[in-house]
Amino acid sequence: MQNIKLILGYDGTNYHGFQLQKNAVTVQQILEDALQKIFGERLRVASSGRTDTGVHAAGQVVNFHVKTTIPAERIPYALNAVLPRDIVTYAAEVVPHDFHARFSATSKLYTYTIDNAPHPRVLTRHIAYHVRYPADVALMQAAAANLVGQHDFSSFKSAGSAVKSTVRNLLRLDVTESDRYITITAEADGFLYNMVRIIAGTLIEVGRGKRQPDLRPVIEARDRNAAGWTVPPHGLILREVKYER
Amino acid sequence: MQNIKLILGYDGTNYHGFQLQKNAVTVQQILEDALQKIFGERLRVASSGRTDTGVHAAGQVVNFHVKTTIPAERIPYALNAVLPRDIVTYAAEVVPHDFHARFSATSKLYTYTIDNAPHPRVLTRHIAYHVRYPADVALMQAAAANLVGQHDFSSFKSAGSAVKSTVRNLLRLDVTESDRYITITAEADGFLYNMVRIIAGTLIEVGRGKRQPDLRPVIEARDRNAAGWTVPPHGLILREVKYER
Repeated sequence: MQNIKLILGYDGTNYHGFQLQKNAVTVQQILEDALQKIFGERLRVASSGRTDTGVHAAGQVVNFHVKTTIPAERIPYALNAVLPRDIVTYAAEVVPHDFHARFSATSKLYTYTIDNAPHPRVLTRHIAYHVRYPADVALMQAAAANLVGQHDFSSFKSAGSAVKSTVRNLLRLDVTESDRYITITAEADGFLYNMVRIIAGTLIEVGRGKRQPDLRPVIEARDRNAAGWTVPPHGLILREVKYER
Repeated sequence: MQNIKLILGYDGTNYHGFQLQKNAVTVQQILEDALQKIFGERLRVASSGRTDTGVHAAGQVVNFHVKTTIPAERIPYALNAVLPRDIVTYAAEVVPHDFHARFSATSKLYTYTIDNAPHPRVLTRHIAYHVRYPADVALMQAAAANLVGQHDFSSFKSAGSAVKSTVRNLLRLDVTESDRYITITAEADGFLYNMVRIIAGTLIEVGRGKRQPDLRPVIEARDRNAAGWTVPPHGLILREVKYER
Protein backbone atom coordinates (compact mmCIF):
# COMPACT_ATOMS: atom_id res chain seq x y z
CA MET A 1 0.00 0.00 0.00
CA GLN A 2 1.19 3.49 -0.84
CA ASN A 3 -0.07 6.75 0.58
CA ILE A 4 -0.41 9.19 -2.34
CA LYS A 5 -0.71 12.94 -1.92
CA LEU A 6 -2.26 14.96 -4.74
CA ILE A 7 -2.28 18.71 -5.31
CA LEU A 8 -5.42 19.75 -7.15
CA GLY A 9 -6.89 22.81 -8.80
CA TYR A 10 -10.53 23.22 -9.65
CA ASP A 11 -12.96 25.78 -10.88
CA GLY A 12 -15.72 25.56 -8.29
CA THR A 13 -18.33 27.22 -10.52
CA ASN A 14 -20.08 24.03 -11.51
CA TYR A 15 -19.70 22.02 -8.30
CA HIS A 16 -21.57 21.85 -5.03
CA GLY A 17 -18.31 22.21 -3.19
CA PHE A 18 -15.55 19.70 -2.64
CA GLN A 19 -17.08 17.22 -0.25
CA LEU A 20 -19.22 14.21 -1.24
CA GLN A 21 -22.95 14.85 -1.08
CA LYS A 22 -25.99 12.87 -2.02
CA ASN A 23 -27.85 14.18 -5.07
CA ALA A 24 -25.28 16.86 -5.93
CA VAL A 25 -22.14 16.79 -8.04
CA THR A 26 -19.02 17.55 -6.03
CA VAL A 27 -15.32 17.70 -6.83
CA GLN A 28 -14.60 14.75 -4.55
CA GLN A 29 -17.08 12.55 -6.40
CA ILE A 30 -15.63 13.41 -9.81
CA LEU A 31 -12.11 12.90 -8.48
CA GLU A 32 -12.96 9.50 -6.98
CA ASP A 33 -14.63 8.53 -10.27
CA ALA A 34 -11.39 9.42 -12.06
CA LEU A 35 -9.27 7.50 -9.53
CA GLN A 36 -11.49 4.47 -10.08
CA LYS A 37 -10.79 4.64 -13.81
CA ILE A 38 -7.04 4.76 -13.18
CA PHE A 39 -6.70 2.28 -10.31
CA GLY A 40 -9.64 -0.02 -11.01
CA GLU A 41 -11.11 0.27 -7.55
CA ARG A 42 -13.24 2.69 -5.53
CA LEU A 43 -10.89 4.75 -3.38
CA ARG A 44 -11.84 7.29 -0.75
CA VAL A 45 -9.76 10.45 -0.57
CA ALA A 46 -9.10 12.54 2.53
CA SER A 47 -8.91 16.27 1.84
CA SER A 48 -7.34 19.20 3.66
CA GLY A 49 -10.89 20.36 4.24
CA ARG A 50 -14.05 21.07 2.33
CA THR A 51 -14.48 24.04 0.08
CA ASP A 52 -17.99 25.42 -0.34
CA THR A 53 -20.13 25.59 -3.45
CA GLY A 54 -18.54 27.93 -5.96
CA VAL A 55 -15.19 28.23 -4.15
CA HIS A 56 -12.10 27.49 -6.26
CA ALA A 57 -8.82 25.79 -5.53
CA ALA A 58 -5.34 26.24 -6.94
CA GLY A 59 -3.68 24.04 -4.30
CA GLN A 60 -6.18 21.75 -2.61
CA VAL A 61 -4.49 18.67 -1.11
CA VAL A 62 -5.91 15.16 -0.83
CA ASN A 63 -4.41 11.80 0.00
CA PHE A 64 -5.48 8.21 -0.48
CA HIS A 65 -4.04 4.76 0.02
CA VAL A 66 -3.64 2.39 -2.91
CA LYS A 67 -1.60 -0.57 -4.05
CA THR A 68 -0.22 0.39 -7.44
CA THR A 69 2.78 0.13 -9.73
CA ILE A 70 2.05 3.44 -11.47
CA PRO A 71 4.92 5.84 -10.68
CA ALA A 72 3.63 8.84 -8.73
CA GLU A 73 4.88 11.34 -11.30
CA ARG A 74 2.67 9.71 -13.96
CA ILE A 75 -0.51 9.94 -11.89
CA PRO A 76 -1.30 13.59 -12.77
CA TYR A 77 -1.10 12.83 -16.50
CA ALA A 78 -3.28 9.72 -16.10
CA LEU A 79 -5.84 11.55 -13.97
CA ASN A 80 -5.96 14.69 -16.11
CA ALA A 81 -6.69 12.53 -19.14
CA VAL A 82 -9.95 11.37 -17.54
CA LEU A 83 -10.89 14.38 -15.39
CA PRO A 84 -13.11 17.15 -16.81
CA ARG A 85 -11.31 20.34 -17.79
CA ASP A 86 -12.37 22.16 -14.62
CA ILE A 87 -10.51 19.81 -12.28
CA VAL A 88 -6.75 19.39 -12.73
CA THR A 89 -4.17 17.37 -10.80
CA TYR A 90 -0.96 19.40 -10.60
CA ALA A 91 1.27 17.00 -8.67
CA ALA A 92 1.37 13.61 -7.01
CA GLU A 93 3.89 12.12 -4.62
CA VAL A 94 4.27 9.16 -2.30
CA VAL A 95 4.12 10.33 1.31
CA PRO A 96 4.65 8.56 4.66
CA HIS A 97 1.82 6.29 5.76
CA ASP A 98 0.80 8.59 8.59
CA PHE A 99 0.37 11.64 6.33
CA HIS A 100 -3.21 12.92 6.34
CA ALA A 101 -4.23 15.82 4.10
CA ARG A 102 -6.21 17.44 6.91
CA PHE A 103 -4.61 16.40 10.18
CA SER A 104 -1.02 16.82 9.01
CA ALA A 105 -1.63 20.35 7.68
CA THR A 106 0.06 23.16 9.58
CA SER A 107 -1.61 26.05 7.76
CA LYS A 108 -3.81 26.96 4.81
CA LEU A 109 -3.58 29.94 2.54
CA TYR A 110 -6.55 31.50 0.75
CA THR A 111 -6.91 34.53 -1.48
CA TYR A 112 -10.07 36.55 -1.97
CA THR A 113 -10.07 38.79 -5.04
CA ILE A 114 -12.19 41.89 -5.52
CA ASP A 115 -12.56 43.51 -8.93
CA ASN A 116 -12.81 47.17 -7.94
CA ALA A 117 -13.17 48.67 -11.43
CA PRO A 118 -16.42 50.52 -12.25
CA HIS A 119 -17.54 47.66 -14.52
CA PRO A 120 -16.64 43.99 -14.00
CA ARG A 121 -13.64 42.78 -16.03
CA VAL A 122 -15.15 40.03 -18.11
CA LEU A 123 -12.23 37.61 -18.27
CA THR A 124 -11.94 37.33 -14.48
CA ARG A 125 -15.64 37.45 -13.67
CA HIS A 126 -15.57 33.83 -12.40
CA ILE A 127 -12.71 34.43 -9.92
CA ALA A 128 -13.16 38.03 -8.76
CA TYR A 129 -16.08 39.56 -6.89
CA HIS A 130 -17.04 42.85 -8.46
CA VAL A 131 -17.41 45.83 -6.11
CA ARG A 132 -18.30 48.88 -8.15
CA TYR A 133 -17.55 51.56 -5.57
CA PRO A 134 -13.88 52.31 -4.88
CA ALA A 135 -12.48 50.83 -1.68
CA ASP A 136 -9.59 52.47 0.18
CA VAL A 137 -6.86 49.84 0.35
CA ALA A 138 -4.88 51.67 3.05
CA LEU A 139 -7.92 51.54 5.35
CA MET A 140 -8.38 47.85 4.58
CA GLN A 141 -4.72 47.19 5.38
CA ALA A 142 -5.01 49.02 8.70
CA ALA A 143 -8.11 47.00 9.60
CA ALA A 144 -6.50 43.72 8.54
CA ALA A 145 -3.61 44.32 10.94
CA ASN A 146 -6.10 44.12 13.86
CA LEU A 147 -7.06 40.59 12.94
CA VAL A 148 -3.61 39.04 12.62
CA GLY A 149 -2.63 36.79 15.50
CA GLN A 150 -4.37 34.31 17.75
CA HIS A 151 -7.94 35.31 18.51
CA ASP A 152 -11.34 33.88 19.17
CA PHE A 153 -12.83 34.44 15.70
CA SER A 154 -16.46 33.69 16.67
CA SER A 155 -17.53 36.96 15.10
CA PHE A 156 -16.13 35.72 11.77
CA LYS A 157 -17.85 32.33 11.72
CA SER A 158 -21.13 31.39 10.09
CA ALA A 159 -23.52 29.16 11.99
CA GLY A 160 -23.76 25.59 10.82
CA SER A 161 -20.45 24.03 11.79
CA ALA A 162 -19.75 22.41 15.12
CA VAL A 163 -16.17 23.10 16.17
CA LYS A 164 -14.56 22.52 19.56
CA SER A 165 -12.72 25.80 19.58
CA THR A 166 -13.24 29.07 17.74
CA VAL A 167 -9.70 30.22 18.46
CA ARG A 168 -7.49 30.37 15.38
CA ASN A 169 -4.07 31.76 14.66
CA LEU A 170 -4.27 34.12 11.69
CA LEU A 171 -0.65 34.12 10.57
CA ARG A 172 -1.05 36.58 7.75
CA LEU A 173 -3.72 38.90 6.36
CA ASP A 174 -2.42 41.01 3.51
CA VAL A 175 -4.36 43.40 1.32
CA THR A 176 -2.74 44.32 -1.97
CA GLU A 177 -3.93 46.14 -5.07
CA SER A 178 -2.90 45.85 -8.68
CA ASP A 179 -4.79 47.17 -11.71
CA ARG A 180 -7.87 47.77 -9.56
CA TYR A 181 -7.95 44.18 -8.34
CA ILE A 182 -7.78 44.05 -4.54
CA THR A 183 -6.45 40.76 -3.24
CA ILE A 184 -6.85 39.66 0.36
CA THR A 185 -4.37 36.92 1.28
CA ALA A 186 -5.17 35.02 4.47
CA GLU A 187 -3.08 32.29 6.07
CA ALA A 188 -4.05 30.57 9.31
CA ASP A 189 -3.55 27.32 11.16
CA GLY A 190 -7.19 26.72 10.35
CA PHE A 191 -10.28 28.64 9.31
CA LEU A 192 -13.77 28.68 10.74
CA TYR A 193 -16.81 28.25 8.51
CA ASN A 194 -16.93 31.17 6.00
CA MET A 195 -14.19 32.95 7.95
CA VAL A 196 -12.31 34.31 4.93
CA ARG A 197 -15.49 35.44 3.23
CA ILE A 198 -16.69 37.26 6.38
CA ILE A 199 -13.27 38.86 6.85
CA ALA A 200 -13.38 40.00 3.21
CA GLY A 201 -16.89 41.41 3.63
CA THR A 202 -15.82 43.26 6.76
CA LEU A 203 -12.69 44.68 5.11
CA ILE A 204 -14.73 45.87 2.12
CA GLU A 205 -17.04 47.75 4.49
CA VAL A 206 -13.96 49.39 6.03
CA GLY A 207 -12.54 50.21 2.60
CA ARG A 208 -15.80 51.86 1.58
CA GLY A 209 -15.90 53.97 4.74
CA LYS A 210 -18.90 52.19 6.21
CA ARG A 211 -17.03 50.78 9.19
CA GLN A 212 -14.16 51.86 11.44
CA PRO A 213 -10.79 50.25 10.67
CA ASP A 214 -10.36 49.36 14.35
CA LEU A 215 -11.75 45.82 14.32
CA ARG A 216 -10.74 44.92 17.88
CA PRO A 217 -14.29 45.50 19.19
CA VAL A 218 -15.58 43.19 16.45
CA ILE A 219 -13.28 40.40 17.63
CA GLU A 220 -14.16 41.07 21.25
CA ALA A 221 -17.91 40.90 20.56
CA ARG A 222 -17.68 37.19 19.68
CA ASP A 223 -20.89 37.72 17.79
CA ARG A 224 -21.42 37.06 14.08
CA ASN A 225 -23.62 40.18 13.86
CA ALA A 226 -20.67 42.39 14.83
CA ALA A 227 -18.79 41.58 11.61
CA GLY A 228 -19.54 42.34 7.97
CA TRP A 229 -21.47 40.34 5.43
CA THR A 230 -20.38 37.10 3.82
CA VAL A 231 -19.11 37.91 0.33
CA PRO A 232 -19.92 35.51 -2.55
CA PRO A 233 -17.86 32.34 -3.00
CA HIS A 234 -16.44 32.96 -6.48
CA GLY A 235 -13.71 35.37 -5.30
CA LEU A 236 -12.27 32.75 -2.97
CA ILE A 237 -9.41 30.47 -3.94
CA LEU A 238 -7.72 27.88 -1.73
CA ARG A 239 -4.14 28.54 -2.81
CA GLU A 240 -1.97 26.31 -0.68
CA VAL A 241 -2.02 23.84 2.16
CA LYS A 242 1.24 23.73 4.10
CA TYR A 243 2.79 20.76 5.88
CA GLU A 244 5.82 20.27 8.05
CA ARG A 245 8.68 18.74 6.22
CA MET B 1 -27.00 62.83 -33.82
CA GLN B 2 -24.13 61.84 -31.60
CA ASN B 3 -21.23 59.61 -32.45
CA ILE B 4 -20.68 57.32 -29.46
CA LYS B 5 -17.50 55.33 -28.88
CA LEU B 6 -17.66 52.26 -26.65
CA ILE B 7 -14.85 50.23 -25.11
CA LEU B 8 -15.88 46.60 -24.71
CA GLY B 9 -14.62 43.43 -23.13
CA TYR B 10 -15.90 40.00 -23.97
CA ASP B 11 -15.19 36.37 -23.32
CA GLY B 12 -15.11 34.95 -26.83
CA THR B 13 -15.64 31.35 -25.69
CA ASN B 14 -19.31 31.21 -26.56
CA TYR B 15 -19.36 33.42 -29.67
CA HIS B 16 -18.63 32.91 -33.32
CA GLY B 17 -16.38 35.93 -33.27
CA PHE B 18 -17.27 39.59 -33.19
CA GLN B 19 -18.75 40.23 -36.61
CA LEU B 20 -22.38 39.67 -37.60
CA GLN B 21 -23.06 36.33 -39.25
CA LYS B 22 -26.13 34.55 -40.43
CA ASN B 23 -27.07 31.52 -38.35
CA ALA B 24 -24.40 32.05 -35.68
CA VAL B 25 -24.36 34.06 -32.47
CA THR B 26 -21.77 36.82 -32.52
CA VAL B 27 -20.77 39.58 -30.13
CA GLN B 28 -21.91 42.28 -32.54
CA GLN B 29 -25.39 40.79 -32.74
CA ILE B 30 -25.75 40.59 -28.95
CA LEU B 31 -24.38 44.13 -28.60
CA GLU B 32 -26.77 45.51 -31.21
CA ASP B 33 -29.65 43.70 -29.48
CA ALA B 34 -28.66 45.43 -26.24
CA LEU B 35 -28.37 48.84 -27.95
CA GLN B 36 -31.85 48.35 -29.35
CA LYS B 37 -33.19 47.79 -25.84
CA ILE B 38 -31.54 51.00 -24.62
CA PHE B 39 -32.15 53.30 -27.59
CA GLY B 40 -35.33 51.81 -29.00
CA GLU B 41 -34.01 51.44 -32.52
CA ARG B 42 -31.80 49.08 -34.49
CA LEU B 43 -28.32 50.60 -34.64
CA ARG B 44 -25.37 49.31 -36.57
CA VAL B 45 -21.97 49.50 -34.87
CA ALA B 46 -18.61 49.88 -36.60
CA SER B 47 -15.81 47.99 -34.87
CA SER B 48 -12.02 48.37 -34.88
CA GLY B 49 -12.00 45.02 -36.66
CA ARG B 50 -13.37 41.54 -36.31
CA THR B 51 -12.09 39.09 -33.76
CA ASP B 52 -12.33 35.41 -34.62
CA THR B 53 -14.35 32.69 -32.94
CA GLY B 54 -13.03 32.11 -29.44
CA VAL B 55 -10.84 35.24 -29.33
CA HIS B 56 -11.37 37.55 -26.35
CA ALA B 57 -11.32 41.30 -25.94
CA ALA B 58 -10.44 43.54 -23.03
CA GLY B 59 -10.46 46.72 -25.12
CA GLN B 60 -12.42 46.30 -28.34
CA VAL B 61 -13.69 49.62 -29.68
CA VAL B 62 -16.92 50.26 -31.57
CA ASN B 63 -18.79 53.38 -32.52
CA PHE B 64 -22.33 54.14 -33.62
CA HIS B 65 -24.46 57.16 -34.37
CA VAL B 66 -27.61 57.85 -32.38
CA LYS B 67 -29.87 60.66 -31.31
CA THR B 68 -30.19 60.37 -27.56
CA THR B 69 -30.44 62.30 -24.32
CA ILE B 70 -28.77 59.57 -22.26
CA PRO B 71 -25.48 60.99 -20.94
CA ALA B 72 -22.54 59.00 -22.33
CA GLU B 73 -21.24 58.07 -18.88
CA ARG B 74 -24.55 56.30 -18.11
CA ILE B 75 -24.49 54.16 -21.25
CA PRO B 76 -22.14 51.46 -19.83
CA TYR B 77 -24.41 50.96 -16.82
CA ALA B 78 -27.51 50.80 -19.01
CA LEU B 79 -25.90 48.40 -21.48
CA ASN B 80 -24.35 46.14 -18.84
CA ALA B 81 -27.75 45.75 -17.23
CA VAL B 82 -29.06 44.10 -20.39
CA LEU B 83 -25.92 42.45 -21.80
CA PRO B 84 -25.06 38.86 -20.84
CA ARG B 85 -22.28 38.47 -18.29
CA ASP B 86 -19.68 37.60 -20.93
CA ILE B 87 -19.91 40.95 -22.72
CA VAL B 88 -19.19 44.13 -20.74
CA THR B 89 -19.10 47.79 -21.74
CA TYR B 90 -16.27 49.49 -19.88
CA ALA B 91 -16.61 53.03 -21.15
CA ALA B 92 -18.60 55.28 -23.47
CA GLU B 93 -17.86 58.75 -24.76
CA VAL B 94 -19.10 61.17 -27.36
CA VAL B 95 -16.52 61.49 -30.14
CA PRO B 96 -16.28 63.75 -33.23
CA HIS B 97 -18.59 62.85 -36.09
CA ASP B 98 -15.73 61.68 -38.29
CA PHE B 99 -14.42 59.19 -35.72
CA HIS B 100 -14.56 55.61 -37.02
CA ALA B 101 -13.54 52.71 -34.78
CA ARG B 102 -11.60 51.08 -37.59
CA PHE B 103 -10.41 53.81 -39.92
CA SER B 104 -9.39 56.23 -37.17
CA ALA B 105 -7.31 53.61 -35.32
CA THR B 106 -3.56 54.15 -35.34
CA SER B 107 -2.58 50.84 -33.76
CA LYS B 108 -3.93 47.74 -32.02
CA LEU B 109 -2.44 45.83 -29.15
CA TYR B 110 -2.98 42.12 -28.57
CA THR B 111 -1.64 39.69 -26.00
CA TYR B 112 -1.28 35.95 -26.47
CA THR B 113 -0.84 33.97 -23.25
CA ILE B 114 0.76 30.55 -22.94
CA ASP B 115 0.41 28.49 -19.78
CA ASN B 116 3.77 26.75 -19.70
CA ALA B 117 3.30 24.72 -16.50
CA PRO B 118 3.35 20.91 -16.80
CA HIS B 119 -0.42 20.77 -16.21
CA PRO B 120 -2.91 23.47 -17.27
CA ARG B 121 -3.84 25.96 -14.53
CA VAL B 122 -7.54 25.48 -14.23
CA LEU B 123 -8.62 29.05 -13.44
CA THR B 124 -7.00 30.48 -16.58
CA ARG B 125 -7.80 27.60 -18.93
CA HIS B 126 -10.15 29.83 -20.98
CA ILE B 127 -7.57 32.59 -21.58
CA ALA B 128 -4.21 30.76 -21.76
CA TYR B 129 -3.09 28.13 -24.23
CA HIS B 130 -1.43 25.26 -22.44
CA VAL B 131 1.97 24.14 -23.74
CA ARG B 132 3.24 21.33 -21.57
CA TYR B 133 6.88 21.34 -22.64
CA PRO B 134 9.05 24.19 -21.33
CA ALA B 135 9.78 26.98 -23.79
CA ASP B 136 12.95 29.08 -23.57
CA VAL B 137 11.79 32.67 -23.21
CA ALA B 138 15.19 34.15 -24.05
CA LEU B 139 15.13 32.37 -27.42
CA MET B 140 11.59 33.59 -28.02
CA GLN B 141 12.65 37.16 -27.22
CA ALA B 142 15.58 36.95 -29.62
CA ALA B 143 13.28 35.65 -32.36
CA ALA B 144 10.66 38.30 -31.66
CA ALA B 145 13.23 41.05 -32.19
CA ASN B 146 13.56 39.94 -35.84
CA LEU B 147 9.90 40.64 -36.50
CA VAL B 148 9.65 44.15 -35.10
CA GLY B 149 9.48 46.87 -37.70
CA GLN B 150 7.87 47.30 -41.10
CA HIS B 151 7.82 44.08 -43.11
CA ASP B 152 5.79 42.17 -45.62
CA PHE B 153 4.17 39.70 -43.22
CA SER B 154 2.77 37.37 -45.92
CA SER B 155 4.38 34.40 -44.15
CA PHE B 156 2.30 35.23 -41.07
CA LYS B 157 -1.07 35.48 -42.78
CA SER B 158 -3.70 32.79 -43.18
CA ALA B 159 -5.49 32.45 -46.47
CA GLY B 160 -9.04 33.71 -46.62
CA SER B 161 -8.74 37.46 -46.39
CA ALA B 162 -8.30 39.78 -49.33
CA VAL B 163 -6.05 42.68 -48.37
CA LYS B 164 -4.42 45.24 -50.64
CA SER B 165 -1.10 45.15 -48.88
CA THR B 166 0.55 42.60 -46.64
CA VAL B 167 3.03 45.14 -45.29
CA ARG B 168 2.48 45.99 -41.64
CA ASN B 169 4.47 47.93 -39.08
CA LEU B 170 4.96 45.76 -36.00
CA LEU B 171 5.66 48.43 -33.39
CA ARG B 172 6.27 46.10 -30.50
CA LEU B 173 6.61 42.36 -29.92
CA ASP B 174 7.48 41.57 -26.32
CA VAL B 175 7.79 38.16 -24.70
CA THR B 176 7.59 38.11 -20.90
CA GLU B 177 7.25 35.36 -18.33
CA SER B 178 5.69 35.33 -14.90
CA ASP B 179 4.75 32.28 -12.85
CA ARG B 180 5.20 30.04 -15.90
CA TYR B 181 2.79 32.12 -17.98
CA ILE B 182 4.47 33.38 -21.14
CA THR B 183 2.82 36.48 -22.56
CA ILE B 184 3.43 37.72 -26.08
CA THR B 185 2.45 41.37 -26.50
CA ALA B 186 2.07 42.55 -30.08
CA GLU B 187 1.28 46.06 -31.24
CA ALA B 188 1.01 47.04 -34.89
CA ASP B 189 -0.63 49.57 -37.16
CA GLY B 190 -2.72 46.64 -38.32
CA PHE B 191 -2.67 42.87 -38.31
CA LEU B 192 -3.16 40.38 -41.11
CA TYR B 193 -5.56 37.46 -40.74
CA ASN B 194 -4.35 35.21 -37.87
CA MET B 195 -1.07 37.14 -37.73
CA VAL B 196 -0.70 37.17 -33.95
CA ARG B 197 -1.61 33.49 -33.66
CA ILE B 198 0.90 32.51 -36.34
CA ILE B 199 3.61 34.67 -34.71
CA ALA B 200 2.83 32.99 -31.37
CA GLY B 201 3.00 29.51 -32.94
CA THR B 202 6.31 30.36 -34.57
CA LEU B 203 7.78 31.77 -31.34
CA ILE B 204 6.69 28.66 -29.42
CA GLU B 205 8.55 26.50 -31.94
CA VAL B 206 11.63 28.66 -31.37
CA GLY B 207 11.23 28.43 -27.59
CA ARG B 208 11.01 24.66 -27.77
CA GLY B 209 14.18 24.44 -29.87
CA LYS B 210 12.34 23.26 -32.99
CA ARG B 211 13.18 26.33 -35.04
CA GLN B 212 16.09 28.78 -35.33
CA PRO B 213 15.55 32.14 -33.57
CA ASP B 214 16.64 33.96 -36.74
CA LEU B 215 13.27 34.56 -38.35
CA ARG B 216 14.50 36.85 -41.13
CA PRO B 217 14.38 34.01 -43.71
CA VAL B 218 10.78 33.33 -42.64
CA ILE B 219 9.81 36.92 -43.37
CA GLU B 220 11.71 36.89 -46.64
CA ALA B 221 10.02 33.69 -47.82
CA ARG B 222 6.63 35.46 -48.02
CA ASP B 223 5.12 32.01 -47.74
CA ARG B 224 2.70 30.87 -45.05
CA ASN B 225 4.43 27.47 -45.00
CA ALA B 226 7.66 29.07 -43.84
CA ALA B 227 6.16 30.11 -40.48
CA GLY B 228 4.86 28.08 -37.55
CA TRP B 229 1.39 26.78 -36.88
CA THR B 230 -1.64 28.83 -35.92
CA VAL B 231 -2.15 28.49 -32.17
CA PRO B 232 -5.71 28.20 -30.81
CA PRO B 233 -7.83 31.34 -30.37
CA HIS B 234 -8.45 31.21 -26.62
CA GLY B 235 -5.01 32.59 -25.66
CA LEU B 236 -5.59 35.73 -27.72
CA ILE B 237 -6.95 38.94 -26.23
CA LEU B 238 -7.49 42.23 -28.05
CA ARG B 239 -6.24 44.56 -25.30
CA GLU B 240 -6.36 48.03 -26.74
CA VAL B 241 -7.11 50.02 -29.86
CA LYS B 242 -5.21 53.29 -30.02
CA TYR B 243 -6.32 56.53 -31.66
CA GLU B 244 -4.70 59.88 -32.24
CA ARG B 245 -5.80 62.47 -29.77
